[in-house]
Amino acid sequence: MNAEIIAVGSELLLGQITNTNAKFLSQQLAEIGINVYYHTVVGDNKERLIHAIREAESRADLLIFTGGLGPTKDDLTKETISTHIGRPLVYDQAALESIENYFAKTRITMTPNNRKQALVMEKSVVLPNDYGMAPGMLVKKNKHAYILLPGPPREMQPMFTSYARPELLNILEKVEKIESRVLRFFGIGESTLETELEDLLIAQQNPTLAPLAGDGEVTLRITAKHESEAAALQMIQQAEEEVLRRVGEYFYGYNDTTLARELAVHLKKHNSSIAAAESLTGGLFQSELTDVPGASSFFSGGIVCYSNEAKKELVKVKEETLARYGAVSAECAAELAENVRRLLGAEFGISFTGAAGPEPLEGHPPGTVWIGLSRKGKETETFKLSLSGSRAGVRKRAVKYGCHYLLAELSQKT
Amino acid sequence: MNAEIIAVGSELLLGQITNTNAKFLSQQLAEIGINVYYHTVVGDNKERLIHAIREAESRADLLIFTGGLGPTKDDLTKETISTHIGRPLVYDQAALESIENYFAKTRITMTPNNRKQALVMEKSVVLPNDYGMAPGMLVKKNKHAYILLPGPPREMQPMFTSYARPELLNILEKVEKIESRVLRFFGIGESTLETELEDLLIAQQNPTLAPLAGDGEVTLRITAKHESEAAALQMIQQAEEEVLRRVGEYFYGYNDTTLARELAVHLKKHNSSIAAAESLTGGLFQSELTDVPGASSFFSGGIVCYSNEAKKELVKVKEETLARYGAVSAECAAELAENVRRLLGAEFGISFTGAAGPEPLEGHPPGTVWIGLSRKGKETETFKLSLSGSRAGVRKRAVKYGCHYLLAELSQKT
Repeated sequence: MNAEIIAVGSELLLGQITNTNAKFLSQQLAEIGINVYYHTVVGDNKERLIHAIREAESRADLLIFTGGLGPTKDDLTKETISTHIGRPLVYDQAALESIENYFAKTRITMTPNNRKQALVMEKSVVLPNDYGMAPGMLVKKNKHAYILLPGPPREMQPMFTSYARPELLNILEKVEKIESRVLRFFGIGESTLETELEDLLIAQQNPTLAPLAGDGEVTLRITAKHESEAAALQMIQQAEEEVLRRVGEYFYGYNDTTLARELAVHLKKHNSSIAAAESLTGGLFQSELTDVPGASSFFSGGIVCYSNEAKKELVKVKEETLARYGAVSAECAAELAENVRRLLGAEFGISFTGAAGPEPLEGHPPGTVWIGLSRKGKETETFKLSLSGSRAGVRKRAVKYGCHYLLAELSQKT
Repeated sequence: MNAEIIAVGSELLLGQITNTNAKFLSQQLAEIGINVYYHTVVGDNKERLIHAIREAESRADLLIFTGGLGPTKDDLTKETISTHIGRPLVYDQAALESIENYFAKTRITMTPNNRKQALVMEKSVVLPNDYGMAPGMLVKKNKHAYILLPGPPREMQPMFTSYARPELLNILEKVEKIESRVLRFFGIGESTLETELEDLLIAQQNPTLAPLAGDGEVTLRITAKHESEAAALQMIQQAEEEVLRRVGEYFYGYNDTTLARELAVHLKKHNSSIAAAESLTGGLFQSELTDVPGASSFFSGGIVCYSNEAKKELVKVKEETLARYGAVSAECAAELAENVRRLLGAEFGISFTGAAGPEPLEGHPPGTVWIGLSRKGKETETFKLSLSGSRAGVRKRAVKYGCHYLLAELSQKT
């Protein structure tokens, strides 16, 4: 079976948004052994959409559409396909109720055009939308299957994995399984990783190894094909062991995890606890940590001490420390980490102070970062970083380094 | 003139990377008045690439290719187009020298396949690569123009803006300027906005109005075409005035701004100051506010009070309040906002408390949010929200609502 992914939306052709849906769906389809030979993007225009559908029908068995299911006039995916394949639209009672409930709950008045979202093609499998109003659908006609998904990724992604993917697995007659696993690394550059794995990267056929750098991290996707899922997984396992034998010290987790998420897992596992005092990062570390469900088991709270007054009054940094060393200093980072740990009665205290940019701070160039790490019963450590990039980039990478140091410290307990 | 953007690379069809090049080029082309009706992605496969080229030639004047110009065997864009349009490849001396210099400089041994990158089509305009080795090219044949660009964005983007764009402006017989402006709205749904603007949306031709929903916000892109830039801007201005006359109360800013950024601008303008106590949002509000350069002029710090102990000890919420009303309550939100405002000596205090999910909290379903808003000399207000979506989505939208309420309050000062 091979598929074509068709994104519908003039905003894509105007460069207003990026087609991230095609990437997500391609990954998902590869995992279940469906080949993707083309992506197409077409605007909110009926004639051009029909042209794209005909073209895709000539070369693919499965057509997956994203976008154009909403309530407004330029949302025309469903109507166009309905006409094209001759399947009239009918109201889906469950979808209609779910839309009415949504408006009742949010207390927004429901305008009539919202009912349009509950229209589905006759004899289609309705795909519920758990994060929005417009349902998706899967419909088969002659030799083709058509899947219609909403445009917003936070609606489309769960709809695909929860509802469309199981339907597809039912349709597939024979599956050559494509399994893949992403290994995530922090603290190593892409070119160093490539050098360490050079012979493996040159010799690769099945499994394949694909390194990718981004956001200060490097990932390695290992992909194996085999008729047997177990055999494919075994091939991945072997490749992974060889990779980790060489660069395992930089490895921190699999697939879509993040450093903050791994830190949360390890803090829970160790029945540990943490508090934070953030100047440079302004709450970003604590925000990422509490994005993990169940964070309350290891995190009680912390301080955002942006000004020197806040550092003194809320975290009791000594006046003398600030006067003598400044806020961008090992001494200030150490006091912040230690004091916030005591203040919240936690096992760990971490602090972030520095110059995020674009202007220098206290004579330190943008990207100068001090991280303090205090652990009950141990001497407080400090780490200095010189990061490049934008203000937002410096802050994000500082948080990643903080998680990285904490993970290293936690691993010493086991 | 209309264009089609064709990205070549199997890594795109496997979902390993996102086609950000199409977004960049679409924006660039819109700016110089070239319509884009389709994006296509095709793999490193000669037959399928030829199929995509033929299809694009049937519907576009200008074909822009990204990717497939590198040294390896699967880089076949140049070779395929050369055969297809019958323009043989010849060595470009300048490109060859630049490649040899690159290897000499990095002291890496130059493998023979790298010479391949210096091949260009006869009678083409060579586009230098200032950030990599493979040059691009522009070639005209019959009624079509073909532009070949490298795949990596950091090579492609400067090549397009420095070399391809000026060539395109030369080719264009008459330049019709396309200007556009995005208006951002919060607190109004896409369907309500459309209902308010229905007659404008139906009548639209030039300028066009395109509403788009995402992340709890709605944007409206106004796009006008005219030979004179000033006239196009004037058309946008008129459309904007009519739009704002109807839904101006929900408007908060232009183009790529955010609610947090607008809040920062207004806090600065009013010489005001703010402090925050965050439970539900765990530091996200403060993190977004301090992502704006110069935040120290209106923000000194705040508290992340995730546990009830932290609410009591760090923000002095009364034991009785928590016992009687719980943490997810108007009473708790009000005390948090008022107390943190006093603690930091700020004009405004804001608080976020609630159930982010996935589990209910104190019997309240996920998405239940209380926001407290305290202003010096005024009675503290509280707002209740019932949000749907993921944990991360609830937290993000709660922060947006907080900014929205503060912006409304600040606008009352003027």
